Amino acid sequence: MKQNCSIEEIGQELERMGRIAKEASRKLATASSEQKNRWLSAMADALDAQTETILNANRTDMENAEAAGLSSAMLDRLRLNEKRIRDISDGLRHVLSLPDPVGRSLAQISRPNGLEIEKVSVPIGVIAIIYESRPNVTVDATGLCLKAGNAVILRGGSEAIHSNLALARIIAEAGVREGMPEGAIQMIPWTGHEAVSRMLKLNQFIDLVIPRGGERLIRAVVEQATMPVIKHYKGVCHIFVDETCDFSRACDIIENAKCQRPGVCNALETLLIHKNALPVFAPMIAKRLANVELHADDAFRALVPEALPATEEDWFREYLSLKLAVRTVNSLDEAIAHINHYGSGHSDCILTEDQTHAEQFLNEVDSAAVYVNASTRFTDGGEFGFGAEIGISTDKLHARGPMGLVELTSYKYKVRGSGQIRS
Amino acid sequence: MKQNCSIEEIGQELERMGRIAKEASRKLATASSEQKNRWLSAMADALDAQTETILNANRTDMENAEAAGLSSAMLDRLRLNEKRIRDISDGLRHVLSLPDPVGRSLAQISRPNGLEIEKVSVPIGVIAIIYESRPNVTVDATGLCLKAGNAVILRGGSEAIHSNLALARIIAEAGVREGMPEGAIQMIPWTGHEAVSRMLKLNQFIDLVIPRGGERLIRAVVEQATMPVIKHYKGVCHIFVDETCDFSRACDIIENAKCQRPGVCNALETLLIHKNALPVFAPMIAKRLANVELHADDAFRALVPEALPATEEDWFREYLSLKLAVRTVNSLDEAIAHINHYGSGHSDCILTEDQTHAEQFLNEVDSAAVYVNASTRFTDGGEFGFGAEIGISTDKLHARGPMGLVELTSYKYKVRGSGQIRS
Repeated sequence: MKQNCSIEEIGQELERMGRIAKEASRKLATASSEQKNRWLSAMADALDAQTETILNANRTDMENAEAAGLSSAMLDRLRLNEKRIRDISDGLRHVLSLPDPVGRSLAQISRPNGLEIEKVSVPIGVIAIIYESRPNVTVDATGLCLKAGNAVILRGGSEAIHSNLALARIIAEAGVREGMPEGAIQMIPWTGHEAVSRMLKLNQFIDLVIPRGGERLIRAVVEQATMPVIKHYKGVCHIFVDETCDFSRACDIIENAKCQRPGVCNALETLLIHKNALPVFAPMIAKRLANVELHADDAFRALVPEALPATEEDWFREYLSLKLAVRTVNSLDEAIAHINHYGSGHSDCILTEDQTHAEQFLNEVDSAAVYVNASTRFTDGGEFGFGAEIGISTDKLHARGPMGLVELTSYKYKVRGSGQIRS
Repeated sequence: MKQNCSIEEIGQELERMGRIAKEASRKLATASSEQKNRWLSAMADALDAQTETILNANRTDMENAEAAGLSSAMLDRLRLNEKRIRDISDGLRHVLSLPDPVGRSLAQISRPNGLEIEKVSVPIGVIAIIYESRPNVTVDATGLCLKAGNAVILRGGSEAIHSNLALARIIAEAGVREGMPEGAIQMIPWTGHEAVSRMLKLNQFIDLVIPRGGERLIRAVVEQATMPVIKHYKGVCHIFVDETCDFSRACDIIENAKCQRPGVCNALETLLIHKNALPVFAPMIAKRLANVELHADDAFRALVPEALPATEEDWFREYLSLKLAVRTVNSLDEAIAHINHYGSGHSDCILTEDQTHAEQFLNEVDSAAVYVNASTRFTDGGEFGFGAEIGISTDKLHARGPMGLVELTSYKYKVRGSGQIRS
């Protein structure tokens, strides 16, 4: 850990890291699938072989975290054990088995003048990942970026610094032993904010930043970054219960979306109910969600008095817990307007038997994933069939929704001519 | 012109503009192709009908510009006449005739659990265009954005403010008369920098900023923007003359790339010559480029003494004029390394008869468009068959190279279920 460097030294070292990452990315861009898979396989084996080293590093982080009084939820995120390390190495083996996203022919254009234009997928280049407490991200994100031919610069949370440095060193060394270019995997060893601020100005070396974490982290990155950022922002997900809906099935879907894993971004946060469905459905869903704290409007509370009164802020809230905002709407249009105004453009669903309503909802709700009659919990790279995901983009540029290997590539145009000049 | 507002008033008005642009974008997103085409047609007719109004506004700008002592090149960019206005309205009619990029089915995924996932192209939302002196951009950029279902917020150069406001007002009014939502086309009436800085913080309303102009403008936008930016940056384009090249054809291509229109971003700026080609080719190309000021290395100057000595800065230069940097390289690898180091990732070409060299160049040069045996001048939406272009992206995220209508769209996932819940 080089924690005693001056700001100038850190700046110089970050520039050096950026430069060698860019150099490595040139070599990664032309690496074959076989080469990349060999590196990933060696990394997985090295993690298994050096489990003890990783656990020792993690123990230091855990001791510091306990001394600092971190919550048990935070401690759980930070903790590694043999099973978790094995999951991480198996994750690499899974990524290895996925199709290479680089070198796909995306379009072929034959021009009247004889030019043959081919649009081909290529790596993005150098990707910086900024993340918080979970040390597995160090390896998971690296595996995906590398499979797509990108170099990575990693910056994890300060509480996981020993675990992260151990993981990054082990996989980088294992890759390099198999011929991976130096600089393909680098971790920033400084935990202060200044190092991140400096890194976010290195747009001559870094092509993309992916921040993974809370709203504050993401806002700080967006404010400072001079290179493109793909945000994995909050999920204020909605389900709208239309008047024609199958209420029994609706209860199953809503319970699943809210309760199956409340702490994730595709979990349900606001339930909208058509006023004509309310008299029957309100008591039904209140009974089903007996363990959920409901924050509801007056119309719902008239039928379910034990619900708490909702405030304007509740409509914007990402609870990430067993709490749910509930609002009555007069029409489909009102439901759509609510979602587009208060939502975060992540995942939103209509439960209806009316095909016209379903199509209107799918067309007019401006979110990455729009659902008819299914749980919002399916917004996930694995569930979408992408094999893996680096996260779920709430941006509209480049990648929207689950980001898999394909979304970690760019493209170039190869133009083959025979002497063409422009007149 | 509301030039006397306080910063606070400007900030409030910009927020209002952002809000109504976002509202308009919701309606534009579901507008049919026929509706959008009707608006574009009405706009084109209105420009023709109100040519005199536009010319009057332009006269004010021209008088101010002349009084301010602008260069004749700047004055020419600013000038409108009947022919140029007719070209602008015909441009809208051409965009109208292109296929609608919204609503394309990009992928269909049937999951084992019965979920049907469809990836569909949708508009991006609200796009801000920041541009410099040419008033035609006001209409050209708006036409493309609108055809792709996006609302626009325009910010042109101060010297063209009267022309731009007249053009924007005429097309906005014509569209609205045909049912286009208010707020779909808006122009910022303040010419000070503060208005741009404020606008670049409105990421709750604006989904994308496209700066079109010089390096300083683009850097300022990137520094300040909190929303995604697609840069149309400089083109330091290279041609590499390989040892096996057809020299006579090479002279034609190089002359075309350098001289046909030297002031554009896909024009040639640096010529690289393989050392084995140098003895024969240096005198040939010097003769052909007699009207071009050559900035060359010592090896070239030994054969062409009238060439000026090149400095390190010349390798980075985008001359945009009849000047050319010339450098001798020892190998294809050296040529590729030079281009990746000094180039801007725009358009680069190898002239060779060696297929292996051609493929290595296409794979290893990290640029938006990589050419074999053709002029770099073809990097253009029209020449690529896109029908039109809003610019040429030097970014790798979202869009790279020529940006047509398709690149002005995002996508969403429509997920149709029958009660699926996640286990």
